[in-house]
Amino acid sequence: MNASEFRKRGKEMVDYIADYIEEIEKRQVYPNVEPGYLRPLIPDSAPQEPETFEEILKDVEKIIMPGVTHWHHPHFFAYFPTANSFPALLADMLSGGLGCIGFSWASSPAYTEMEMVMLDWLGKMVNLPPQFLAGKDGEGGGVIQGTASEATLVALLAARTNAIKRVHTANPELTQGDILSRLVAYSSDQAHSSVEKAGLIAGVKIKQVPTDEKFAVCGSALQKTVDEDKAADLIPFFFCATLGTTASCAFDKILELGPVCNKENIWMHIDAEYAGSSFICPEFQYLLDGVEFADSFNFNPHKWLLVNFDCSTMWVKKRRDLTCAFKIDPPYLKHDHQESGLITDYRHWQIPLGRRFRSLKMWFVFRMYGVKGLQEYIRKHVKLAHEFEVLVRQDDRFEICADVILGLVCFRLKGSNKLNETLLKSINDARKIHLISCHLREKFVLRFAICARTVESVHVQFAWKHIEKLATELLRAPLQQQ
Amino acid sequence: MNASEFRKRGKEMVDYIADYIEEIEKRQVYPNVEPGYLRPLIPDSAPQEPETFEEILKDVEKIIMPGVTHWHHPHFFAYFPTANSFPALLADMLSGGLGCIGFSWASSPAYTEMEMVMLDWLGKMVNLPPQFLAGKDGEGGGVIQGTASEATLVALLAARTNAIKRVHTANPELTQGDILSRLVAYSSDQAHSSVEKAGLIAGVKIKQVPTDEKFAVCGSALQKTVDEDKAADLIPFFFCATLGTTASCAFDKILELGPVCNKENIWMHIDAEYAGSSFICPEFQYLLDGVEFADSFNFNPHKWLLVNFDCSTMWVKKRRDLTCAFKIDPPYLKHDHQESGLITDYRHWQIPLGRRFRSLKMWFVFRMYGVKGLQEYIRKHVKLAHEFEVLVRQDDRFEICADVILGLVCFRLKGSNKLNETLLKSINDARKIHLISCHLREKFVLRFAICARTVESVHVQFAWKHIEKLATELLRAPLQQQ
Repeated sequence: MNASEFRKRGKEMVDYIADYIEEIEKRQVYPNVEPGYLRPLIPDSAPQEPETFEEILKDVEKIIMPGVTHWHHPHFFAYFPTANSFPALLADMLSGGLGCIGFSWASSPAYTEMEMVMLDWLGKMVNLPPQFLAGKDGEGGGVIQGTASEATLVALLAARTNAIKRVHTANPELTQGDILSRLVAYSSDQAHSSVEKAGLIAGVKIKQVPTDEKFAVCGSALQKTVDEDKAADLIPFFFCATLGTTASCAFDKILELGPVCNKENIWMHIDAEYAGSSFICPEFQYLLDGVEFADSFNFNPHKWLLVNFDCSTMWVKKRRDLTCAFKIDPPYLKHDHQESGLITDYRHWQIPLGRRFRSLKMWFVFRMYGVKGLQEYIRKHVKLAHEFEVLVRQDDRFEICADVILGLVCFRLKGSNKLNETLLKSINDARKIHLISCHLREKFVLRFAICARTVESVHVQFAWKHIEKLATELLRAPLQQQ
Repeated sequence: MNASEFRKRGKEMVDYIADYIEEIEKRQVYPNVEPGYLRPLIPDSAPQEPETFEEILKDVEKIIMPGVTHWHHPHFFAYFPTANSFPALLADMLSGGLGCIGFSWASSPAYTEMEMVMLDWLGKMVNLPPQFLAGKDGEGGGVIQGTASEATLVALLAARTNAIKRVHTANPELTQGDILSRLVAYSSDQAHSSVEKAGLIAGVKIKQVPTDEKFAVCGSALQKTVDEDKAADLIPFFFCATLGTTASCAFDKILELGPVCNKENIWMHIDAEYAGSSFICPEFQYLLDGVEFADSFNFNPHKWLLVNFDCSTMWVKKRRDLTCAFKIDPPYLKHDHQESGLITDYRHWQIPLGRRFRSLKMWFVFRMYGVKGLQEYIRKHVKLAHEFEVLVRQDDRFEICADVILGLVCFRLKGSNKLNETLLKSINDARKIHLISCHLREKFVLRFAICARTVESVHVQFAWKHIEKLATELLRAPLQQQ
């Protein structure tokens, strides 16, 4: 395929994507294929001779689409939102076309420099304390990670390096192995599974601190766990606070937790993967009070800020903490400006070496929406969640299971878990809308998350009527089926 | 921006990208900006009100392009190639438009299923032993990682889990900490820096095995190191063999190394990040002889197989080895088919949770080029490298520093390292072509890598004439400047 055929096919693809998004409501939100559906539909091995674009695009409809869960369907209320906006798509096209690998400043200076500035823009939008910004000569700064999982892991590794150094300096007789086996990290019992995974990777113990009746960790709970562990000769070194848990969008009390961490020499990382985007609205910034105590902070514009996946933004107060944990400089990556102290080589801030031009998406989205446009978008989602909440509260067969603060509503039928499992199954089997569940303590709970960019009141009303109807059928059914 | 404006702007972007690639030779391959160039060119903070697409596209030329290193310029001979093809761009546009997050089978079945089949296609193309393929009921299979760094880390972590389990079973009195501090992993002294980084992350010792005069590790060198370490009460558990080292594209002797690893219970991972793509040509498949001894194998189609970054393909003989190292299943990610044993949840094969639809790029590229088209592409690059090699050999002021096997030529002026450093600096300062260096033992060496998709003999000839001319000027200069 040469450039002139790309001009033609690329434009067809633009139309295909525009059609897909404009007409997504004609598709079934949740596919009904079975595992292994795709393999029999395509050949066993790659073709020897080239095929045409027409053949492939035809196969997209025939082979791919039947197996797609349509995350941008306005009847998709599962998980949390993932971003999809036209400005981000345009930026990603350009990023693909340029196709550089920005692992060092010299490998494509614009990549690194734009990322530094975009992270400052976004940091200001969410009102981060200035220590987290790079500016012209700050000690902090931001970086785009692929996912919040990676941000948590990177923070944990930096904290681990710091802790080993500190303990070793105070006790030179201890080996790295001795210290490692005594380190202990913490998260909420509601924290994302990625924290546990980060602990597994880093080879350190992770303990879950119990949450209160709002599913939040408070300062005294952390202090109690820390005290017990210190008495047992362990070394607490890392706490991952969650703002907006995956299950119920609960907020750990970082205003209480921060001082505990600071006093105990514990690195505080804040994971606000979903909720963080809302902090661009002044009325939600109170949720971030206490970030001044943190060492690192992360959220995912690729969830709720219209910047397509992947774009997980992470800030640290001291960038040296990250680079010291990772810095390895082989001769083939050295360049002129490296030792000048003026530049940022982002490969020292992350697990992988290669990097795409992801800050371009932020630049396009922030400029084409404007901060006001993005704020409106967040507010619309929150409003729709409250609209759904009101509907649930009006039906006394149902209960709301957690405070509705942003775009997530946790609810269930009053009654057994079995009943609610059956309700969820009937919802997903009907395939008109798509939801998932969570456990809140012993309760099986349905999660209704406002997701699609194009979701409106009419879709929320439709979803509620559908859920109500299925609930009525279920409650009417003979008891043994419940 | 709504869908109808996207139709217009998307098509403009397609033309912009086609223009960029068609006219890339008019641009300067290596930028001459200084660190910090970009910040003064854009505002301090994001705009409150939306801006237009025209304004942004104008800024791309004004602000971005002056700071781009043009990796797809036919005068770019630095690092290794990174892929950029029109079919891959089209697939990535579609992947962006669909915008799903394929962390589990249910989150978008087509994502997982296409990836399984594409990894089988590519595995067959490079003639991997069938144990590495998933097929309908195999125990092995492939996965797309973001980068080779992540593949190495994932392999190392799986090996670590296996080793700890094995040693603990034999010696139940040992704690995990005891075992961890005795584990030792190996790579070539020519291996990529990512192996060292993986060791840092995993908290295990990494030792470099010395290479022979061809910069390759042979079986006896590994055996010697293993024997010494065992005598010192260490536990060897992982060896990362490199096929095509970053410095000189050298090949570790896996036919000798494999049996050592198998006998010693050492996980053998093969990292063929650049060279792996060449194995689609029968005449280069001998380089992979010995892969049958390996536990895991990885290469980067995003380097040399026209599949845009990121697409690092990794295969394992036993997929359980990966999933056991990572499997964490929170309730909010459970789905109906999970326990059936029929499905693959790729989140257990990797560090991050979220995943894009990257196998779509493989499907588009393999079908639109055909295997034959891809083979031709590889052969053209290898031929151009030999063309450059011949030019260097004809000039007796220069020497070739390593066997030219694929698309990389390592060469230098006979003489001091200082002289060659000066030559490289004059080449990059002139900004007509772009190269980087490496160290081979004590020697400072220039690397000439065939990179761009559109590079032809005329560009190689141009580059050589330019280098010759700069060398002549340099050798004529007063001695003190050398």
